[in-house]
Amino acid sequence: MKVGVIGCGYWGPNLVRNFNALDNVDVAAVCDIRPERLEFISRLYPTIRTLTADANDILHSGDIDAVVIATPVSMHFPLGLEALSSGKHIFVEKPFTATVEQAQRLNELAQIKNLHIMVDHTFIYTGAVQTVKRIIDGGELGDLYYFDSVRVNLGLFQHDVNVIWDLAPHDVSIMDYLLGRRPRAIAATGVAHFEPNIENIAYISAYYDNNLLGHIHVNWLAPVKVRKTLISGSKKMIVYDDMEPSEKIKIYDRGVDIVEDKDQIYNILVQYRTGDMLAPHIDLTEALKKATREFYDAVNEDRPALTDGVAGLQVVKILEASNNSMRTGGKVIELD
Amino acid sequence: MKVGVIGCGYWGPNLVRNFNALDNVDVAAVCDIRPERLEFISRLYPTIRTLTADANDILHSGDIDAVVIATPVSMHFPLGLEALSSGKHIFVEKPFTATVEQAQRLNELAQIKNLHIMVDHTFIYTGAVQTVKRIIDGGELGDLYYFDSVRVNLGLFQHDVNVIWDLAPHDVSIMDYLLGRRPRAIAATGVAHFEPNIENIAYISAYYDNNLLGHIHVNWLAPVKVRKTLISGSKKMIVYDDMEPSEKIKIYDRGVDIVEDKDQIYNILVQYRTGDMLAPHIDLTEALKKATREFYDAVNEDRPALTDGVAGLQVVKILEASNNSMRTGGKVIELD
Amino acid sequence: MKVGVIGCGYWGPNLVRNFNALDNVDVAAVCDIRPERLEFISRLYPTIRTLTADANDILHSGDIDAVVIATPVSMHFPLGLEALSSGKHIFVEKPFTATVEQAQRLNELAQIKNLHIMVDHTFIYTGAVQTVKRIIDGGELGDLYYFDSVRVNLGLFQHDVNVIWDLAPHDVSIMDYLLGRRPRAIAATGVAHFEPNIENIAYISAYYDNNLLGHIHVNWLAPVKVRKTLISGSKKMIVYDDMEPSEKIKIYDRGVDIVEDKDQIYNILVQYRTGDMLAPHIDLTEALKKATREFYDAVNEDRPALTDGVAGLQVVKILEASNNSMRTGGKVIELD
Amino acid sequence: MKVGVIGCGYWGPNLVRNFNALDNVDVAAVCDIRPERLEFISRLYPTIRTLTADANDILHSGDIDAVVIATPVSMHFPLGLEALSSGKHIFVEKPFTATVEQAQRLNELAQIKNLHIMVDHTFIYTGAVQTVKRIIDGGELGDLYYFDSVRVNLGLFQHDVNVIWDLAPHDVSIMDYLLGRRPRAIAATGVAHFEPNIENIAYISAYYDNNLLGHIHVNWLAPVKVRKTLISGSKKMIVYDDMEPSEKIKIYDRGVDIVEDKDQIYNILVQYRTGDMLAPHIDLTEALKKATREFYDAVNEDRPALTDGVAGLQVVKILEASNNSMRTGGKVIELD
Repeated sequence: MKVGVIGCGYWGPNLVRNFNALDNVDVAAVCDIRPERLEFISRLYPTIRTLTADANDILHSGDIDAVVIATPVSMHFPLGLEALSSGKHIFVEKPFTATVEQAQRLNELAQIKNLHIMVDHTFIYTGAVQTVKRIIDGGELGDLYYFDSVRVNLGLFQHDVNVIWDLAPHDVSIMDYLLGRRPRAIAATGVAHFEPNIENIAYISAYYDNNLLGHIHVNWLAPVKVRKTLISGSKKMIVYDDMEPSEKIKIYDRGVDIVEDKDQIYNILVQYRTGDMLAPHIDLTEALKKATREFYDAVNEDRPALTDGVAGLQVVKILEASNNSMRTGGKVIELD
Repeated sequence: MKVGVIGCGYWGPNLVRNFNALDNVDVAAVCDIRPERLEFISRLYPTIRTLTADANDILHSGDIDAVVIATPVSMHFPLGLEALSSGKHIFVEKPFTATVEQAQRLNELAQIKNLHIMVDHTFIYTGAVQTVKRIIDGGELGDLYYFDSVRVNLGLFQHDVNVIWDLAPHDVSIMDYLLGRRPRAIAATGVAHFEPNIENIAYISAYYDNNLLGHIHVNWLAPVKVRKTLISGSKKMIVYDDMEPSEKIKIYDRGVDIVEDKDQIYNILVQYRTGDMLAPHIDLTEALKKATREFYDAVNEDRPALTDGVAGLQVVKILEASNNSMRTGGKVIELD
Repeated sequence: MKVGVIGCGYWGPNLVRNFNALDNVDVAAVCDIRPERLEFISRLYPTIRTLTADANDILHSGDIDAVVIATPVSMHFPLGLEALSSGKHIFVEKPFTATVEQAQRLNELAQIKNLHIMVDHTFIYTGAVQTVKRIIDGGELGDLYYFDSVRVNLGLFQHDVNVIWDLAPHDVSIMDYLLGRRPRAIAATGVAHFEPNIENIAYISAYYDNNLLGHIHVNWLAPVKVRKTLISGSKKMIVYDDMEPSEKIKIYDRGVDIVEDKDQIYNILVQYRTGDMLAPHIDLTEALKKATREFYDAVNEDRPALTDGVAGLQVVKILEASNNSMRTGGKVIELD
Repeated sequence: MKVGVIGCGYWGPNLVRNFNALDNVDVAAVCDIRPERLEFISRLYPTIRTLTADANDILHSGDIDAVVIATPVSMHFPLGLEALSSGKHIFVEKPFTATVEQAQRLNELAQIKNLHIMVDHTFIYTGAVQTVKRIIDGGELGDLYYFDSVRVNLGLFQHDVNVIWDLAPHDVSIMDYLLGRRPRAIAATGVAHFEPNIENIAYISAYYDNNLLGHIHVNWLAPVKVRKTLISGSKKMIVYDDMEPSEKIKIYDRGVDIVEDKDQIYNILVQYRTGDMLAPHIDLTEALKKATREFYDAVNEDRPALTDGVAGLQVVKILEASNNSMRTGGKVIELD
C-alpha cells in the first residue's frame, strides 16, 4: 500500500513514522503548505519521493493507494471527497468532519466506490481502552449507570475550533466505543472567555436509554492536567486515569446492593460492597501503531475498520449536537 | 445563651460538643425521638438537664434562648416557625429548608420578631474556604472564569432527599460565598438508579453574568472519594482539594495572556504563563467550632451571621431550581 | 477480668475505651500523677471506681487481675516487676522495656508465676499487616529479598527517648512479625540535631540469613508524613502505604526471572515480569480493639498472646542493638 | 569544535543530537563496535563523516578536538588516557572512572596537557537541581541537617557493575553538588540476590561534619519507581520528587524551633513551625542540552566545567568507599 500524507503539523510525523514502520506499507508522498515542515520530514525520512505543497500531487497521483488527511478539520471534507473520488482509501484525523452532513456524504461515496474510510480515534487503540472494553463486554460491570470523563489542562488554544471540537472527540469516541450504544439526546454548556465562538470550557451531557448517563468536561484553561474517566455499573466500577504512567485502569469491586425491606413496603435497604481493587497489566504499545495497522488490515481484508466512517459519523453527530445545544443556551437536543 | 438541640443523629453530638465548649453558652436541653440517642448524649454530657422526646419541651421552654434544628430537612420549616414564634433564635442544619417559600417565610418572621437565623453551612468556616475567600476578594485571581466542583464517593444513600439536596448544599454554599454574586440561571441533569425521585448522581450548571460559569458534580455512587474544586481567573487559578490532609489549597500562577496581533486583525495571540505554585498554610481549626461561635456572636452583637437566613435562602433557591431543572429534563431555569 | 490502667497520657484514653468495650472486662482503676488526666477520664467514664495518683493502689489491689502499663518506657520494668510479683497479668505499651535484660527478667518472672505478658505492638493487629502476613505465609512472594520501611514526619520530639526507641518499635515489630525469622546482625546510623543522645533521625540495617535484608528509616524531622514499606520477594512485591485511606496494601505481580544462558556459561539472562496489581480489601477495624481482645483471650485461654513478652523481647533486642551500633559509629553488631 | 563520540548505546544518540545542535560544534565521527548502532546513527545524521568500529580512528584523528566517551565504565580510563595523550578534551559519561586512582591519573594528565575533562553528571544541569542549589546557597534552609535520596524501580540489571556504580552516581553527584562539602566517612550495605558481586540493592550513609548526614537508597528491584530526595535544614525543608511532571521541587516552611526553658535548665522546649509550601516554577529545558553547552563553554573559555574531572573524582571517591564498605560488611570507611 502506497500512502500519501496531507498535512504535516504536530501529529503528521507520528503518522509518517508509523505508516512507514508497517510491512507492505510505504509512505510515498507528503504534502504541506509550509516548506519548513517538508524539509523537516525530508531530513527524517530521506527516502520519501514526493514532497509537495500541492495536495493534488497526492490526490491525483496514480501511485497512491491511500490518503492520510491530517489537516485542520475544515479541510477534511473537501480533501476526503477528492481522494475518494480519485479512488483512494482515506485515513482521516479526528474529528472526521466539521458537520454530520459532510460525514454522511463521505460515507456514502466510500460505499459507492467500494473504498475504506478510517477515522483516527487513536485512544480506541490504547491498551487501556481495549482492557476496559473487554471488561464491559464481559459483563463484569453489570448494568451500566454512568460514564463521566474529565479532560482538562492549560492547553493549546485553537483558533479554528472550540474545545468541544478539539478535545471532546477523544471522550466521545471512547464513550461511544465502550458503551456500545447511542445516546437519545444531548445537552451542553460552555463559555468562550477569549474569542467569540471559540468556547474554551464545556460540559456535555449524553442521555441514554435505561437511565445510563454520560457526561464530559473539556477545558483548555485548568491549572492541572486531568484525564480521568469514571465508569460505574451495578456490579463494579472503573477509574481510567490516563495520567498514571502504568496503572491506568483500576477496577473496583464496589457498589450498592438494593434489598427490598419485606416488612416496610416503602423502604429499601441499601447495602454497600467494598471489595478488592485490581489494576490489570496494560499493554503500553503505541496506539497509533495499532491504528495504522488496523487501517492497512481493514483495506487488505476489505472489512470495516474498528473506527470506520460510521463510527466517525457517530462521534460527529454527538459533537454537532453538543455544539448546537451549547449555542442555544443548553437546550436538550434529541438525536435522530 | 441557653441552647436547646432538636435532633441528635450523626451530626447532633458535634453540635452539642461545640456549643457546650463556648464560653457563655450552655446546652440546656436535647430532644430526639430515639431513646438510645438521648441515652448516648446523657452519658457523654451528664450535666444536660432536659432530655426529651417532645420538641415542645424545647420550643416552648422559658429557659431556652436559641434552638438548634438538626432534624431531617422536612422538619426544618415547622420547627423553625414554632421556635421563631416562641421568640427563639434558630441555628438550622443545611439545607435551610425544603423550599424557597419556606425559607422566605422564616426570614420574614425572624425580621418581624427581631430574631436571628443562622444556617450551618459549616464548610464556609473552614480555614480552606476562608483562605480562598481572602485570595479572591484580594483580586489575586483577576476576572473570574469558572467554578468547578466535584463531590463524589460511595456515599450514604438518603431515603428522604436526593443527592442534590444532600451533597450539593456544600458546593452551592461555597460557590455562592466565594463568588459573591448570584447566578442568572440554573440547569441540572441527574438520574435515579435505585429509587424513584431519589437521584443519586447529578450535574448542576450555574450561569452568571460576565461569562462566569459554575458547575457541580455530586454523586453517591463512585468508587473513589473526590472533593475537588477548580476556580479559575484571568490571573491565577486555584485547586481546592479537601481530601489533602494539609495542602488543601494550591494557588497556581498560571493562565493565558491574550494579545491582539496588530498585523493580522483577525488573529489573536495566546501566551501561556506557567509560574510558581503556592500552598498556603491553612488554619485547621474545627469549622463547627467557628460556626457555633459565629452564631453566638451574631446574636450577641445583633448582626447578621456570615451564613444567615439570607445566605441560606440563596442556597435553597439554587437547589430548588436545580431540582426543578433536573425533573424537567435539563430545562434552563431563570432565577428571579 | 478487672483491669487497672497506669498512665493516662495520649494513648491511655484509647486503652480505657477499648478495654471497657470488651465483654467480661471492666476497667476498675486508672492511675496518673496528673490530676487533670484523672478528671478527664472521670468525665468520660464516670463508672470507674478508683482514680488515683498512686500506682500502688492498682499494683496491690486485691480487686485487679491485669495491669495496663502505659507510662514512659523507663517505668515499664519496675511497674511490670511489681505487677507480676503481685500476681497480675500485664499489658505493656511499646517498647516492652528499656533494655534486653529487663525484658528477659519480666519474661522469666511471668513464666515462674504463670502469668501473661502482652506488649501493645498495635500495628500487628491492623487489617493491613494481617493481610500481608497471610500473603507472605501463603508463599505468594516467593523467596524474600528485602524489607524496607520509612516512617518519617514532623513529629513530636521526645525528651526521654530517641527516634529509634520512639518510632522504630513499629517497624521492627512489623518486620519481625512478617518475616518470621531473626536477624543475624544489626547496624545503625543516626544523628541528634537538637539534644545530645536524643537522635532525631536514624537508619537501621538488619542482616538476615539467605541474603534477606531489612532496612528502616525513622525520622522526626521531615516536611511530609511517610509511612511506607516495600517488601520484595522472588515472585511478587508488596507496597504497604499506611497513609492511603483504604488501599493500604498493593501486591505487584512484578519481578525478575533469571535464566542461565546455556551457550554463554558466564552470562545470565534477566527477564522482567510486569503483571497485574491487586489492592485487596482491608479490614479497617480499629487495631487496638483486636489487641485488647487478644490480651483477654490469651489470658482466658492460658496461651501466649500474638505479641507476648517473647515477641516484645525480640523487638527490644533489635532496638538495643540498633542503639548500640548507632552510638559506636555504625559498628555491625552480631545478635546472640 | 569537532567532536568524536565513542560508544553509541542507549545514551549515545542523545549525545550526538545535543552536540550537533550546538552552534560551532560538529559531531565529526562516531565509533561503536556494533554495526547496527552505526547504521542507526547514520540514518539519523547522514552528515556525520566518520562511522567506525575502531576507536583509534577518533582518538588519533587530526580532525577531532574533543572525545565523548560513552562506553561501559571499564573503558573510560584507557580511552580517556589515550584521548588526553593525543591532545583531546574529553567528555566522559558517569561514573567518571572505575577507581579513584584512574580518576586521579586522568586529572593529572589533563592538567599537564592543559586539556579539559567534563563528566556527564546530567542531573546537575536540570532546572530542578539548579533551583535547589540556589535555595541552599541563598541560605534559605538554614543549617543543613540531612540529605536523603531514594532511587528505586524495576530497573535494568547491569552485568558489569552493581547498583552502586549504576544508579548512585546520580545521587552522589547531586548530594556532592548541593551540599558543597566533602563527607568525612562512608558506610554502605547491599545485597546481590542474583549474581555474585552484582549487588542489586544498596544503602549508603555519608557522614559529614557538623552532624550533617547523607543517605542514599538505590535499588533495581522495586515494584514502583521512586526518585525522591528530602533535604532538611534548620529553617526550611525541600522535597525533590523527580517523578512529578512539573512540580518537582517543593519548599516547606516547616521546622523546629528549640527554646531553652529558663526555669528548668534541663528542659528544652520544641516548637513546630508549619507554614506555606512553595513549588517554584522549574526550567524544564533538557539537561543534556545545558551539559553539552557547558562543555563547549568551559573549553572555549578555558575554565573548569561545573562537573569537571575534580567533581567526577569526588563522586568516584564516594562510590569506591561505598563499594568497599559494602564488601567488608558495612565497615565505616574514613575518607582521606
